[in-house]
Amino acid sequence: MEYLGESIIQIGESEALARALSVLKSVDSTLVGSGDDAAVVALTDPRVVITTDTMIENHDFLTSWSSGFDLGFKAVMTNVADLVAMGASPRALTVALIVTRQTKQTWLEDFARGLQAACDLMVPPVEVVGGDLASGSEIVIAVTAHGDLDGASPVLRSTAKPGDLVVVAGTLGKAAAGLALLDFHDPSAAASYPELVNVQLRPTPDIALGLEIAKSATAMMDISDGLSLDASRLAKQSGVSINLEKRLLEGYAAVLEQAAQSINSRSGTQLVSEWDWVLHGGEDHSFLVTLPEGTSVPRGAKVIGKVASLKSHSVYLDAEPLSAKGWDSVAG
Amino acid sequence: MEYLGESIIQIGESEALARALSVLKSVDSTLVGSGDDAAVVALTDPRVVITTDTMIENHDFLTSWSSGFDLGFKAVMTNVADLVAMGASPRALTVALIVTRQTKQTWLEDFARGLQAACDLMVPPVEVVGGDLASGSEIVIAVTAHGDLDGASPVLRSTAKPGDLVVVAGTLGKAAAGLALLDFHDPSAAASYPELVNVQLRPTPDIALGLEIAKSATAMMDISDGLSLDASRLAKQSGVSINLEKRLLEGYAAVLEQAAQSINSRSGTQLVSEWDWVLHGGEDHSFLVTLPEGTSVPRGAKVIGKVASLKSHSVYLDAEPLSAKGWDSVAG
Repeated sequence: MEYLGESIIQIGESEALARALSVLKSVDSTLVGSGDDAAVVALTDPRVVITTDTMIENHDFLTSWSSGFDLGFKAVMTNVADLVAMGASPRALTVALIVTRQTKQTWLEDFARGLQAACDLMVPPVEVVGGDLASGSEIVIAVTAHGDLDGASPVLRSTAKPGDLVVVAGTLGKAAAGLALLDFHDPSAAASYPELVNVQLRPTPDIALGLEIAKSATAMMDISDGLSLDASRLAKQSGVSINLEKRLLEGYAAVLEQAAQSINSRSGTQLVSEWDWVLHGGEDHSFLVTLPEGTSVPRGAKVIGKVASLKSHSVYLDAEPLSAKGWDSVAG
Repeated sequence: MEYLGESIIQIGESEALARALSVLKSVDSTLVGSGDDAAVVALTDPRVVITTDTMIENHDFLTSWSSGFDLGFKAVMTNVADLVAMGASPRALTVALIVTRQTKQTWLEDFARGLQAACDLMVPPVEVVGGDLASGSEIVIAVTAHGDLDGASPVLRSTAKPGDLVVVAGTLGKAAAGLALLDFHDPSAAASYPELVNVQLRPTPDIALGLEIAKSATAMMDISDGLSLDASRLAKQSGVSINLEKRLLEGYAAVLEQAAQSINSRSGTQLVSEWDWVLHGGEDHSFLVTLPEGTSVPRGAKVIGKVASLKSHSVYLDAEPLSAKGWDSVAG
């Protein structure tokens, strides 16, 4: 992405920040917004839910693939997905941003618009109540998100019970397919599948569906590192195993088959596989949920297996152990 | 500082983090700690106070001056000072940490011990309830801190009233003196003034005094960028001017005079000045407070001037305009 004009460093932090902040909107639950030593946010419940996540240039994103808008949008969405996975409604965010000496003011304002666009998707909208802008040798985006339980119990990863249904709310593998398309040397591949690329660059977990399904969930988590790894975490923390059924996952693979074939035929090798994306691909930020058997599964969510008593492995696919092939972010 | 042994990257994020987390302690107000999608923290008041601050290697610190312990300690203290400046008791922190490919596991564990040592100074102690560890090209520490108002009104910067006393709780200029000593080419200078160096490396704002004085404050802020700049911010946001009296600041300068003379005589020039440190030096993380006239000033706090109606400049020293010489962190 090309951004023109003055760099942030030429303008100076205070002025650059003031211009970027003018893009952001206030909400009623923010009693004290940015500009004081700290922000004050009104919750309905005195138990505050807190999560934080960091995105680092050249590790988690490339500025050649992602616009400032994309990054602001994604930074909000990945964090609010973690709140929703606890059954908490997003209420407020803080954003610590490091830019480089080259980063343009126009990039910063586009980033702020991306933050705001994601905040506007929440019901009610949430506010960026504080932040910090500094310079370093690569762009770093560290968001902390705050949620409200509204009287409900938090939904943990450690409380799935044998007999529960295993349910996914959201896409599986689309973000990984989008990443493979962006990474493929021929840019026409990515251009042919804009929806998949969009899930990678601007994930939109279904917040309303997540909050609805959380009400009946026995356990729940955000799928950020891939189904196999995240399901194994949930299983281990709950002391159970998870039996996934391939026939129930066919639909997720089917919608990715054409993109996988396109990459493989252009490269002349079996470079990628739609099943790898579905089983091991990260960053969809869908919800992995366990529900008591007999619970009506909300529209938009899909049963993909069942919880069983602990066996020697934590996750099985059609009775075969499914190894967790996720990634370690420090090594990524 | 020398750290030996394996790097974090050799060990892998999960294992490195598990070992470092074993240094950290749990507290009762943390209902769900790290290990789930998000943490859940019990406050007494449903208005959560939130602040965030970032420290970047080679911009905000040098690893040759600061140990991992120092950095963990300072990262907590600078953030909790912002909470206290709102009248809020610190309750929980999240820490997003970026390390480099070279950072040692022993550094990470020392950093965690520094975080915990600062958390242990709070009453009651606070907990690091969540975090994120990733790798990048320089060390970055982004802390978000959460405070509890316990039913009190937040103390803003914008509510000082003409006639109020202007009060400082804590040191003025010591952190800047410590920085100048560390920065001086002859290391024996720093070795001669360990207390000043310590205020720079491990600031310890008086949290109990800050919370006590907040109860009667009309306005309050953390002095992080120096008295002249921070007082001008408070004055502007309150729509008042602040009259400081030099005779009331003499004591702060007196304790720094010898260190300034030591640097100046060794360098053979007028390199530094104790009055510059007192008036413009940052990072003491003391509290600048306005109190209604007649309020009894708590032991440990000191009156340094008075609030007046808005004049053409925001801060005066003995009736002369005092220019704000703080620094812009993006350019720093």
